[in-house]
Amino acid sequence: MSNISYKEAFEGYLESELRIERPENLYRPVHYIMQLGGKRLRPVLLLTAARAYGGKVEDALPAALAIELFHNFTLMHDDIMDKAEQRRGKPSVHAKWDVNTAILSGDVTLILAYEYLQAYPAALFLELSRLFNTTARYVCEGQQWDMDFETLQNIELDDYLLMIKNKTAVLLAASLQMGAMIAGASAVEQKKIYDFGIRLGLAFQLQDDYLDTFGDPETFGKKIGGDILENKKTILYVLAMQYAAEPDKEKLRELYFRQQNLSKEDKIKQVRDIFIRSQADQKTLELIEKYMREAVELLNGMEMHASVREDLRALADRLAARNH
Amino acid sequence: MSNISYKEAFEGYLESELRIERPENLYRPVHYIMQLGGKRLRPVLLLTAARAYGGKVEDALPAALAIELFHNFTLMHDDIMDKAEQRRGKPSVHAKWDVNTAILSGDVTLILAYEYLQAYPAALFLELSRLFNTTARYVCEGQQWDMDFETLQNIELDDYLLMIKNKTAVLLAASLQMGAMIAGASAVEQKKIYDFGIRLGLAFQLQDDYLDTFGDPETFGKKIGGDILENKKTILYVLAMQYAAEPDKEKLRELYFRQQNLSKEDKIKQVRDIFIRSQADQKTLELIEKYMREAVELLNGMEMHASVREDLRALADRLAARNH
Repeated sequence: MSNISYKEAFEGYLESELRIERPENLYRPVHYIMQLGGKRLRPVLLLTAARAYGGKVEDALPAALAIELFHNFTLMHDDIMDKAEQRRGKPSVHAKWDVNTAILSGDVTLILAYEYLQAYPAALFLELSRLFNTTARYVCEGQQWDMDFETLQNIELDDYLLMIKNKTAVLLAASLQMGAMIAGASAVEQKKIYDFGIRLGLAFQLQDDYLDTFGDPETFGKKIGGDILENKKTILYVLAMQYAAEPDKEKLRELYFRQQNLSKEDKIKQVRDIFIRSQADQKTLELIEKYMREAVELLNGMEMHASVREDLRALADRLAARNH
Repeated sequence: MSNISYKEAFEGYLESELRIERPENLYRPVHYIMQLGGKRLRPVLLLTAARAYGGKVEDALPAALAIELFHNFTLMHDDIMDKAEQRRGKPSVHAKWDVNTAILSGDVTLILAYEYLQAYPAALFLELSRLFNTTARYVCEGQQWDMDFETLQNIELDDYLLMIKNKTAVLLAASLQMGAMIAGASAVEQKKIYDFGIRLGLAFQLQDDYLDTFGDPETFGKKIGGDILENKKTILYVLAMQYAAEPDKEKLRELYFRQQNLSKEDKIKQVRDIFIRSQADQKTLELIEKYMREAVELLNGMEMHASVREDLRALADRLAARNH
């Protein structure tokens, strides 16, 4: 089964499961955000991992839906916190309805996620829940670190990597491990695929940071330079503040922390130039390559069918491809 | 063991469990709200029910903490939605910090609740989780109905009772049933104590509605008439809109839905008079008595030690006492 058919299997299951119950003002927003689509990356990873260890796709679907519900719960609440009015080109839940609706519908989305895990036999349910809860807490911690970083001028590289690990990578890793768990993979194999997911998630997030500034405007989808205009502390900022020459550091601080009398284009250009002069761009690419290399090494050491290994490798390549 | 010592046992456990971990901005608000105190009604109910069926208090403590964490998660998010700046005489979480903090710390409080349930063996964990998740979803639905009612002029009595059942009663009932589950009570006994909790919860909430308008200012704690000033649709409003004479209905609608040129005292007095003329006050007391009678009947039919039955009866009396 290819990644595309895993996505189709998931979409079919989602379609059959999601109904708008009463009170409609509570459940309609859940339906809305779940139907906005997207890559369904986490369910696809979970289903792929289940197949990799000989599990059935249909047995893994409830957990895949739990993970996607959890992810969408975080989107609803994060969009409030980040004042993001758009989600996948459509109004975010709090923009379409209001903040109260996005809070409460987000809450019930998280609860629905937990309910789908109940599809599994008791021992497996406990095992899945432990991983799920630890992961859910890490994701909240990552979001908090991210918000804490907004007011900081200097962020240590390790702190930044820990933040994106919590905010993004652990959920990809947990998706893979849950798939492996459902398929009955050994603890050793579960650990390998989890670690693979962490590397993949880190590469994926760093790539996202990189492309926002250095991506090809033709293929990137979003407008280039959005993070710079929002003064977002990405890996490029973190590395530039570490490696830039003193005058550039001072300049970057000013560009990020003081109101500038600059056009958008000029601000993007000036920050971009500092990222290039400090080699933050190159160092970011090196980090991505390092994590991808480690991911592939872990993948090669896993006991799985060659065709599934190829599925996972193809998925990894697509996620961390330079020009997607 | 009396209700007071159940509360003490819970407070001791809470003290030993709650630590402020990093990131502090995430966990400090959890600690803050959990330390605001209160009656610890839900943990006390859970521990009492566990003892009633021969369980150990210490075995029931993790579930009691899970329930209290869940309750405090709802308080954090409800206080945002209701714009309540105070909680137990102190600033609410979003007032002390900000809305984003109250959202994210609320989320992690819910996740912590789930983590405490993991203390139980797999089969019991699954059983507890099923009840917990269903209950959690009902509570969200109740909060949504409550918000939906804000814009309605007429609310059917049954709809109102369903709302307070979901918003308040199911969590009390689930606390009791979880205690019974942990003690290994039969499904029949579990059902009885759950139903007892529903009646108790309904009586408790109706009593709360009644006392806000007709309570003794000396003993009530809060200012009398707060619900009226906020145009809150309580049982008194619902019954008055059903039973009042037409001119009084019209008057009540005006008092609730149009800006009035009235002092606070005059508004409270006029609404109160309509509640009295329509006998909404008497009908509310009759409903409370009906639910309390049913609760006591259910209690008398349960297979538990007489001394624990007395504990539960005393607790019920205290909750629904007219002048507390």
